[in-house]
Amino acid sequence: MDYYSTKITALIDELSRLPGIGAKSAGRLAFHLLNMPEAEVNRLTGAILDAKRTVRYCRECCTLTDSDLCPICASTGRDHSQIMVVENTRDLAAYEKTGKYNGVYHVLHGAISPALGIGPADIKLKELMTRLQGNVEEVIVATNSSLEGETTAMYLSKLIKPAGIRVTRIASGVPVGGDLEYIDEVTLLRALEGRTQL
Amino acid sequence: MDYYSTKITALIDELSRLPGIGAKSAGRLAFHLLNMPEAEVNRLTGAILDAKRTVRYCRECCTLTDSDLCPICASTGRDHSQIMVVENTRDLAAYEKTGKYNGVYHVLHGAISPALGIGPADIKLKELMTRLQGNVEEVIVATNSSLEGETTAMYLSKLIKPAGIRVTRIASGVPVGGDLEYIDEVTLLRALEGRTQL
Repeated sequence: MDYYSTKITALIDELSRLPGIGAKSAGRLAFHLLNMPEAEVNRLTGAILDAKRTVRYCRECCTLTDSDLCPICASTGRDHSQIMVVENTRDLAAYEKTGKYNGVYHVLHGAISPALGIGPADIKLKELMTRLQGNVEEVIVATNSSLEGETTAMYLSKLIKPAGIRVTRIASGVPVGGDLEYIDEVTLLRALEGRTQL
Repeated sequence: MDYYSTKITALIDELSRLPGIGAKSAGRLAFHLLNMPEAEVNRLTGAILDAKRTVRYCRECCTLTDSDLCPICASTGRDHSQIMVVENTRDLAAYEKTGKYNGVYHVLHGAISPALGIGPADIKLKELMTRLQGNVEEVIVATNSSLEGETTAMYLSKLIKPAGIRVTRIASGVPVGGDLEYIDEVTLLRALEGRTQL
């Protein structure tokens, strides 16, 4: 792309490495950035560098946060004996948005995937086992309903149950508002298996 | 979004201001940035700041470039008596990609739009008029085929023709590979009006 100047090409190049941003979007973004007031551009790059510099894992639950202990782990209003295990911080945020869960979390930062060569040692499992030595009554496994998520759930269940701690798994089934016609067979069978008394 | 830390929320907030990036994509981008190696993040922010600092208008054609004169205007191999007028640098790049145009360009950085209050003084028109005092034989108006683009084309034609310079407009019609069935009526009528002898 030598019809743009070197600096613009370099910028488009960097932007197109980001997930979900193709060559066309990168071009549009680059020119948008060039037309933005300097103060706004500085605020954007500042926010990136600032977050990158200060964000770390919470000492307790391993979520991404900018203090030693995340707001949820630091809260005395939450039930610290109930731990929901999720794959990443965005999944934690998804459950927090419901506003109904009052326990705490543990963020694995991944899931076990033999295909991708990701084993139990590559996710934050050791940190979870350390926490279980405290006063924990229930571990709710909320990993994704994918092959990796299910494998992780099975592994966790086998690992934790012998310690006498209750291990539960979030329900799998038809999403609320979902039309049966458009739902895959595996989900339909799961919904049938998990049926409850009315 | 207080389930994320302040710095992460600030980052998502800044990212979601960019065009075409909604709240969900901003979240995904933010966590991608946090997981990227520090060197890559620095390269990205460096590219943004570097481009923002050095990119300016070409002295001659007003395109965005990082030298006083853009590579096209500086080239002796191009025909400087033929000027193609485009709305922005991305439109210039679109024609450069064809590899068949050998003249030079003039970038208006916008189009006349009475509805948005953009008049002839708000685009790089004065700069174009100055260039026309030199040795120019043809001005090819390649503004978009929108209301604003057409208005600008009409305005340019009225302004330049009296100076005895040839003013042409790129053809409007059915795109190559386009199926007549899916093409709007205005385009179909334009294609009919602009029909050529076989």
